[in-house]
Amino acid sequence: MSDNLRQRLPEFYKQVSDNLDSTIQFWLQHSIDKKEGGFFTCLEADGTVYDTTKYSWPICRQVWTLARLYKEVQRFHVPHILEAITKGAEFIMKHVKNQSTGRCYLSLTREGKPLKLQRTIFSEAFYVMAMSEMYRVTSEDQYKKEAMSTMKNIIHWVRVDNTEIGLSVTPPSRTSSLAVPMILLMLIGQLEIMEPAHEASFSDLAQWCIDEVLKHAIKRDGVFAVLESVGEDGQELSGCSGRLMNPGHAIEAGWFLLERAIKHGRKDLQTLALEAFISSSFQRGWDAEFGGLYSFLDVEGRPPMQLEWDMKMWWPHNEAMIAFLMAYKHTGDEEYLKKFAQVFDYSFQHFVDVHHGEWFGYLSREGKVKINAKGGQWKGCFHIPRALMMCEKILHEVLQSS
Amino acid sequence: MSDNLRQRLPEFYKQVSDNLDSTIQFWLQHSIDKKEGGFFTCLEADGTVYDTTKYSWPICRQVWTLARLYKEVQRFHVPHILEAITKGAEFIMKHVKNQSTGRCYLSLTREGKPLKLQRTIFSEAFYVMAMSEMYRVTSEDQYKKEAMSTMKNIIHWVRVDNTEIGLSVTPPSRTSSLAVPMILLMLIGQLEIMEPAHEASFSDLAQWCIDEVLKHAIKRDGVFAVLESVGEDGQELSGCSGRLMNPGHAIEAGWFLLERAIKHGRKDLQTLALEAFISSSFQRGWDAEFGGLYSFLDVEGRPPMQLEWDMKMWWPHNEAMIAFLMAYKHTGDEEYLKKFAQVFDYSFQHFVDVHHGEWFGYLSREGKVKINAKGGQWKGCFHIPRALMMCEKILHEVLQSS
Repeated sequence: MSDNLRQRLPEFYKQVSDNLDSTIQFWLQHSIDKKEGGFFTCLEADGTVYDTTKYSWPICRQVWTLARLYKEVQRFHVPHILEAITKGAEFIMKHVKNQSTGRCYLSLTREGKPLKLQRTIFSEAFYVMAMSEMYRVTSEDQYKKEAMSTMKNIIHWVRVDNTEIGLSVTPPSRTSSLAVPMILLMLIGQLEIMEPAHEASFSDLAQWCIDEVLKHAIKRDGVFAVLESVGEDGQELSGCSGRLMNPGHAIEAGWFLLERAIKHGRKDLQTLALEAFISSSFQRGWDAEFGGLYSFLDVEGRPPMQLEWDMKMWWPHNEAMIAFLMAYKHTGDEEYLKKFAQVFDYSFQHFVDVHHGEWFGYLSREGKVKINAKGGQWKGCFHIPRALMMCEKILHEVLQSS
Repeated sequence: MSDNLRQRLPEFYKQVSDNLDSTIQFWLQHSIDKKEGGFFTCLEADGTVYDTTKYSWPICRQVWTLARLYKEVQRFHVPHILEAITKGAEFIMKHVKNQSTGRCYLSLTREGKPLKLQRTIFSEAFYVMAMSEMYRVTSEDQYKKEAMSTMKNIIHWVRVDNTEIGLSVTPPSRTSSLAVPMILLMLIGQLEIMEPAHEASFSDLAQWCIDEVLKHAIKRDGVFAVLESVGEDGQELSGCSGRLMNPGHAIEAGWFLLERAIKHGRKDLQTLALEAFISSSFQRGWDAEFGGLYSFLDVEGRPPMQLEWDMKMWWPHNEAMIAFLMAYKHTGDEEYLKKFAQVFDYSFQHFVDVHHGEWFGYLSREGKVKINAKGGQWKGCFHIPRALMMCEKILHEVLQSS
């Protein structure tokens, strides 16, 4: 059986690589707004635009994705991708960010007039990713300046004072949300790649993020569970929010930690990343009856608040592909390759659209397509190509070394 | 066939009446927080509390529901219901409403400390309902004062200036959301019942609400469709939000209009309520394959943004029961009774929990229970008992007159 699995490595490589090509082709062909700039992300199964509203999360992430591919993957180092990201970056600098407040809008009209502003830091975080990668591609100071000044704001809002975020209620007790230290850790990783000197300047903050993320792993009946929200000191919170698990999110946090553990040779962190975050979340999150990862679960099996809890969404499967392949490459343990194959097979059988390319995003628990679209306000050109480019690289390295 | 349907009237009456009893029993038994006041609404199938967070929408609505039953239905005019609503009203006056800003929180801790504040008027609207009905029950001025001062705020926020609501973006073009004039119209109806003199003082506002609601009915291929959002002048908006239909919401708006049309003898309005809002929304919203009303639809059949679009939720079925029975009683047209029977049969077969009483709230498209709970942050003691008490009354009148 494990021989068979290793024999599948070239097949995995080819499918991942072909799928990356067709995915990027899909976005380049259908998402570029040649008239007003920026990207359309509300695309039907065949690429038809079903809404021209501009959503900052997928637009900023698309700039990052295409810039990363342009910078790091030879076959995407082509002028029309450079043109697409330059125009995408221009749109977000001009319209997504409000230069006087430093805040980034969540949604805008096609022309770039603001529609919604969230009381969170996530639009700003994706703006930093886009700007930072644009600096890597172009070496133009304007991008670096944008990335660093927005990063400074985010750190202030997270660690010092969140008044500017617009929350008018101060909760009676502080809670720690997994998303916040996770995204900060991702941004630090991004800024370290942009400028290696940041490894020193961000090292305290990185350790704070790691500590904050690790607080979310608790044990129930001897098995780890990663909770989305815990108290400031890591204590469990009562109620639904305190029992909520998001398996894809925990697995994503797992590979963020694993990547950092590998880079700094931290075995303790590696063990926690693999056991507490990746393997246990996969075990708890995989649907034994219909396959695929649940979107949300209550750690005690009580009713979750999220109506979409049992839907199978594309992105947790992307995160699991990255996590298990990274774990396999680094440890050589074929159990991880087996899990990668399990996620790969489910995804390519259920999410991938063989007719028009790209993946469907939202399936029912039973695996049927529920939203017949390739993109929307959240889904865009990001999780899928990020997973495919990372898996292509790892599979290439594994194949080379075997 | 129609003979058979009329023969079912006593059965409908008995089932509706029994179900109202067991539903109210469920909430009285499980939802009262004897220690901290207010009501728990996060109740599992058997009534176990799975979260002690206090949510203002279902709490305010529960005060209204129990007060209305106490006031109008003889068998619920009992001391323990008066005690429950008095304590519920005390909790919301003390904790839900911030007396210095006039705003009402969305959620609070069990003890009443604020957690979240929305940038909308809905918590305040349900607060007005609760206070107004408490005044009807008790004749205590404090409740009337609270109802009227909060109503004044809401009118100011909707018609004059919404700055205090906390929205930091002014959209480039004004849109009309069906929910806002609908809820104002409901509040006017409530305040007219509280004090008949309000019929005169609110008549201009009521007509404005009716005009605003009617803007949302457009025609597609000769068939009415009710859109959730239209432009200020009733023009269709581009994109998903402009194509969104919420059949349950449109049917609810339909019986609000029908009730007013009947009261004021307005045949034109009655025709629009029946054709444009109730019948067409039911026709578009009913799932021909699995039965039940969809939660959201795109008028062109494009991908909806709402992940839960094909789920069957309890409350649209409650609204449809009220609408069709009201239409049948007033017109005598048995087509409406047939539709009532269709919704009644689906609901009693799929939503009603024969083991523990009350209804499940969230089913999959296929009709399986997806959230194994009776209440949560939105679902509480409101749509079901409101529908049952109104249907019980109408069925009683129909049976008496036949």
